[in-house]
Amino acid sequence: MSAATPAYDELAILFRRLWRLEHLAAMAYVDRATIMPPKGNEARAAALAELQGLTHRMLTEPGLKGTLAAAGQEELVPEARANLREMKRKWARANTLPAELVEKKAMAAMRCEHAWRQQRPANDWSGFLANFTEVLGLARQEARCLAEATGLAPYDALMDQYEPGMRAARLDAIFADLRNWLPGLIAQVRERQATEKVIPLPPLAVPIQRQLSCTLMTALGFDFEAGRLDESTHPFCGGVPEDVRLTTRYREGDGVQALMGTIHETGHARYEQGLPRAWLDQPAGLARSFGIHESQSLSCEMQMARSPAFAAFLSPLVIAAAGAHPALAPDNLARALTRVHPGYIRVEADELTYPAHVILRYEIERALVTGEMDAADVPAAWDEKMRAWLGLSTAGNDRDGCMQDVHWTEGLFGYFPSYTLGALYAAQWFAALRRQHGDLDQRIAAGDFSPVFDFMARNIWCRGSLVDTDTLAKEASGEALNPSHFRRHLEQRYLC
Amino acid sequence: MSAATPAYDELAILFRRLWRLEHLAAMAYVDRATIMPPKGNEARAAALAELQGLTHRMLTEPGLKGTLAAAGQEELVPEARANLREMKRKWARANTLPAELVEKKAMAAMRCEHAWRQQRPANDWSGFLANFTEVLGLARQEARCLAEATGLAPYDALMDQYEPGMRAARLDAIFADLRNWLPGLIAQVRERQATEKVIPLPPLAVPIQRQLSCTLMTALGFDFEAGRLDESTHPFCGGVPEDVRLTTRYREGDGVQALMGTIHETGHARYEQGLPRAWLDQPAGLARSFGIHESQSLSCEMQMARSPAFAAFLSPLVIAAAGAHPALAPDNLARALTRVHPGYIRVEADELTYPAHVILRYEIERALVTGEMDAADVPAAWDEKMRAWLGLSTAGNDRDGCMQDVHWTEGLFGYFPSYTLGALYAAQWFAALRRQHGDLDQRIAAGDFSPVFDFMARNIWCRGSLVDTDTLAKEASGEALNPSHFRRHLEQRYLC
Repeated sequence: MSAATPAYDELAILFRRLWRLEHLAAMAYVDRATIMPPKGNEARAAALAELQGLTHRMLTEPGLKGTLAAAGQEELVPEARANLREMKRKWARANTLPAELVEKKAMAAMRCEHAWRQQRPANDWSGFLANFTEVLGLARQEARCLAEATGLAPYDALMDQYEPGMRAARLDAIFADLRNWLPGLIAQVRERQATEKVIPLPPLAVPIQRQLSCTLMTALGFDFEAGRLDESTHPFCGGVPEDVRLTTRYREGDGVQALMGTIHETGHARYEQGLPRAWLDQPAGLARSFGIHESQSLSCEMQMARSPAFAAFLSPLVIAAAGAHPALAPDNLARALTRVHPGYIRVEADELTYPAHVILRYEIERALVTGEMDAADVPAAWDEKMRAWLGLSTAGNDRDGCMQDVHWTEGLFGYFPSYTLGALYAAQWFAALRRQHGDLDQRIAAGDFSPVFDFMARNIWCRGSLVDTDTLAKEASGEALNPSHFRRHLEQRYLC
Repeated sequence: MSAATPAYDELAILFRRLWRLEHLAAMAYVDRATIMPPKGNEARAAALAELQGLTHRMLTEPGLKGTLAAAGQEELVPEARANLREMKRKWARANTLPAELVEKKAMAAMRCEHAWRQQRPANDWSGFLANFTEVLGLARQEARCLAEATGLAPYDALMDQYEPGMRAARLDAIFADLRNWLPGLIAQVRERQATEKVIPLPPLAVPIQRQLSCTLMTALGFDFEAGRLDESTHPFCGGVPEDVRLTTRYREGDGVQALMGTIHETGHARYEQGLPRAWLDQPAGLARSFGIHESQSLSCEMQMARSPAFAAFLSPLVIAAAGAHPALAPDNLARALTRVHPGYIRVEADELTYPAHVILRYEIERALVTGEMDAADVPAAWDEKMRAWLGLSTAGNDRDGCMQDVHWTEGLFGYFPSYTLGALYAAQWFAALRRQHGDLDQRIAAGDFSPVFDFMARNIWCRGSLVDTDTLAKEASGEALNPSHFRRHLEQRYLC
């Protein structure tokens, strides 16, 4: 018989209550992003801010500090100990931030995001600036509070929310390495691809895009009994693990390329659907980090779906739905899905130029958080960095420049690095997978994705936040984050 | 300068917080009824029960009693005094019910309703009975608690939640009157209609049903910027006044008759969208009662949309969308929409036989609540009453009998009378309208619904719960509830 753990049990009840309340917020966000009519926004924002304030107060009950300390003295099984660690993370963050700041930021972020939906298509930077300045001001306050409490630098303190344990110093080394070899590789690949013959992919009618999205999600194991596919301006994977709400968008003129977006979100969704059921209503049951989350979407999209093996699987599916077309032959499809072409839009970027989009955002947001840069300076900095990295100017085109992403509008700073960390981890997982499965490509080509998803289920999904990121990576792949797999993957795919 | 009202102000803040939290519950319910995948149900139920428990605790803070008493001593403007009265109603109800009972009932109701979705089509009464018995047991506990606290009889105490001030004794007199003349009128009308020539209405393709639903909602003034039309098994009007979520259903084979459902819900929706904005986050800003709410839907559907005048407006719309058909001529359309035909299903009933459906439910649920009847006895009682009222047997057909409605599955007892009260009030409003507008039918025929909606906006919508039901009725129509208008309306429509 195990020892009594009254303090821990009390905490587990509190965090279960928080989990349940956050379920309602998650669903209200999904509704808001997919189908809410415009005049509903003010009331929705007020409701969400109210709930956020309320859960914040629950986490800042004065007695909790003592309960957490008492639980630390109890005899806990390792999973419960991990859960306690994650509880402390949530508690520490909440107790650092004044409730008023939390509510004000939530309101400002929702106002900014809502207006941005019109301002971005209108290229209205000056209209956007006032809201954005307010959001940034509150995010800076947040960073200062978190920094003071944790002893971390302000930017690290923000990033730690998305990537527990990751620091700007470690990231700087990784990004410095990328800066060394990536521009040369991009140039080399572009030169090589310039002479490559690729038949452009045909557009697919919107109903066919819709049908193929469902077909692919089913093939990739998405459980439609425990989730849905809806539409939103900005695709995302939301909801809760028991009811995962994935969104995509269908536009006239889009084709197979756009389906990669659905596959990407399906990678996120499978992680959520695969989280450990026994820990689902506790902090330890949550996804490990945003970077690990992105490693799942990029494993699906970049490592798998843009490979020649997957093209062999995908080609007949698309032909069956849309009719034969020379561009849809497997070889051409694979080439078309790995074209490297510097562009303005991050979410449309190929995997070679994607890190450039992330690094420039990282540099800007870090300067914004520390105060080295002001909100008004963002367009110029953006333009300068885009020209340096990709030879493209965004002067006067903020719609396709610094206004393109939703993150900053929502006050999320310190989030962007996770995208590239995800790409690095995905390459590392696939390197491990290839060591274990010599026939990986043949199986993917045959539509047998079980080696991939079995690996993810066993090594990533079912572990939730029960171990820290470095341990997770080591136990999954034999080593902590090692960016060399990403470089090898790119050289293998684009130069061989 | 008005006097300081610190106690009242404190209460207003609390009720605003409750309003905001209930927004999230309302939206989660809509999602659940429209698009939630099946495996999401357990987590959703837990989340909603958690929130319900939480708002219940907010309303049962021990200090509130004193604050309410103190506010009663403050110098309040009449609207604030009305608001305080509605606050006290909410407070009294919450403080009567133990939090545990509230949460248990919410969980049991959601489980019962969710299983019912499969059990009803399967005609599985025995499968349903266990869940239903649990829900009934908890509803009886609820009734006992409310009765003890209010001094009302248990059934009155439940009904008072939906119809403040209404009592079974007053209802018994109204229903006794209906029992006197309605069966004879039904027989007389059926005899008359037996020789009437009516061309059956043609089915409309589902996309045309969908298109006409939107057209009609727009014509009836629904604000699509502040609400949506979605689909659900059981049509309803949900959401919040700032974002009204109306649902309908489209089935192959349905036609104009089904559009009446959309019109019905649009009546509810306009009430919600027309509630007093200044009071929207306070109890006084809510709809007056379920009966008054139903008076809005039935004003739209029964009083207006099934009239010959509306048929003249509707006929060209349907023909434009679906093509000419002899059944769609205004005269025939009006006759087809007022056919009297006893049937099993309440929501499909004509306005003459509808009260029979309500009265039999009222009799059964009253006996269930007092304990004179057990859950297991419902099918037999239902069959007996259906045979007596409408000459139809539901023996062995519980799907179309006692399992047809969602109300009892959700633990709502005391609600059904509101439907017939709504019919009575709607007739009373239209009697008043006709006194004011000699040209009412001509204007409706011309698609000018402003006399109707101006009357409702001024007399019903914008008053929220700022006055009690009898006052509302008197100020709108010169008298409190007077069922004779309903009888006159039916005789006028069906015998002249």
